[in-house]
Amino acid sequence: MPTDQTTTAPMTPQQYGVGARFTLSVYSSDYVSIILGALGEADATGLTVETNDISTFLGGAEADVLRYLRDVVAAAARTGAHISVSILLSRGCPGELECELPAGVGALAAEPISLRATGIRARAHWSLYPLLDGAAGGDRARDHMTPIYDVIERAKQDGLYSGSDHYATRLDGDLAAVLETAANAWIEVGRTVQHVATHLTVSLNSPTPIPA
Amino acid sequence: MPTDQTTTAPMTPQQYGVGARFTLSVYSSDYVSIILGALGEADATGLTVETNDISTFLGGAEADVLRYLRDVVAAAARTGAHISVSILLSRGCPGELECELPAGVGALAAEPISLRATGIRARAHWSLYPLLDGAAGGDRARDHMTPIYDVIERAKQDGLYSGSDHYATRLDGDLAAVLETAANAWIEVGRTVQHVATHLTVSLNSPTPIPA
Repeated sequence: MPTDQTTTAPMTPQQYGVGARFTLSVYSSDYVSIILGALGEADATGLTVETNDISTFLGGAEADVLRYLRDVVAAAARTGAHISVSILLSRGCPGELECELPAGVGALAAEPISLRATGIRARAHWSLYPLLDGAAGGDRARDHMTPIYDVIERAKQDGLYSGSDHYATRLDGDLAAVLETAANAWIEVGRTVQHVATHLTVSLNSPTPIPA
Repeated sequence: MPTDQTTTAPMTPQQYGVGARFTLSVYSSDYVSIILGALGEADATGLTVETNDISTFLGGAEADVLRYLRDVVAAAARTGAHISVSILLSRGCPGELECELPAGVGALAAEPISLRATGIRARAHWSLYPLLDGAAGGDRARDHMTPIYDVIERAKQDGLYSGSDHYATRLDGDLAAVLETAANAWIEVGRTVQHVATHLTVSLNSPTPIPA
């Protein structure tokens, strides 16, 4: 990192490590054509997209990453197949084996995102991880659970909260609203904590009855 | 919590919140029978098992949780179907909406687990989250990345490390060894950090070529 940051341009989302990994699982023997069709319908403008045998990486600004995820998952769900998507959103720790940014870099804030509704109901288990460092942080990052309780409260106000299970909060609503809730919590906590990850398991078209 | 802990029994793994959530995705139109068959082959002794429409919760001691996961995933993979499993292991934060243990409870250490091999190759993306609190921790929990680098080094020594992608380490080996590597890292970091979560996306029988 340059030592005189006042003379350098602000970091881009990619330099700050903003992005996602996701695995789109299709419970159908036609999964290859459903996945390829869904990927073909999503707009990758502004994104780095890299797929391997385990998951797909998306690098880019928050709004672009989430728009892509919404479009891929919605397209797969519209086939009627039962879908489960495992999503990881990460910020503040770019690089591969090691973080290329040291701890204590000023958080790169982002605006909340807004996603057009899909008309598709999604249910998700959601976990949020503010990755504090013992020494850094200051008053606003004193413990890792307070910001989690804050964003769960927000999800309740927004009508997306559907209860809490062990290790995860349940969200229920339009696919776009579910993704928006998780992403905006991740963005919000990222205003004060450098490295923040959030995981979602999103279920669509499940034949399993939804608990009362 | 009792205030005089010297007169009380040590916490059980369930009281300390040791457990897992997992979603077993089967890329086949026969997924219902494959999933039910796999669940039927696993030994749930010692475990609380609760399934809903999104994922399954397992509560219990580390060795029991991991044995169950190995057996379910191995049974599903032996059908030959392409499988993806999203696994979350958590410790130190029992309860649902809120942690029932306050921050700063002494870590409940566990012995490393050992799983009998399956003969089934698995590849995984793996992320580990030591959830430090700003004020607590002390010297051994000064930053959240150091323990992560330590366990990645261990995975290299064990021959399971297969490279690093953005936000995740790639593991490749027998399904049992992949689960063992992730679980033992989670257990090891849990000796000094109260709340530790780890996420795995495990892929089996994928038709996608494995990168060289």
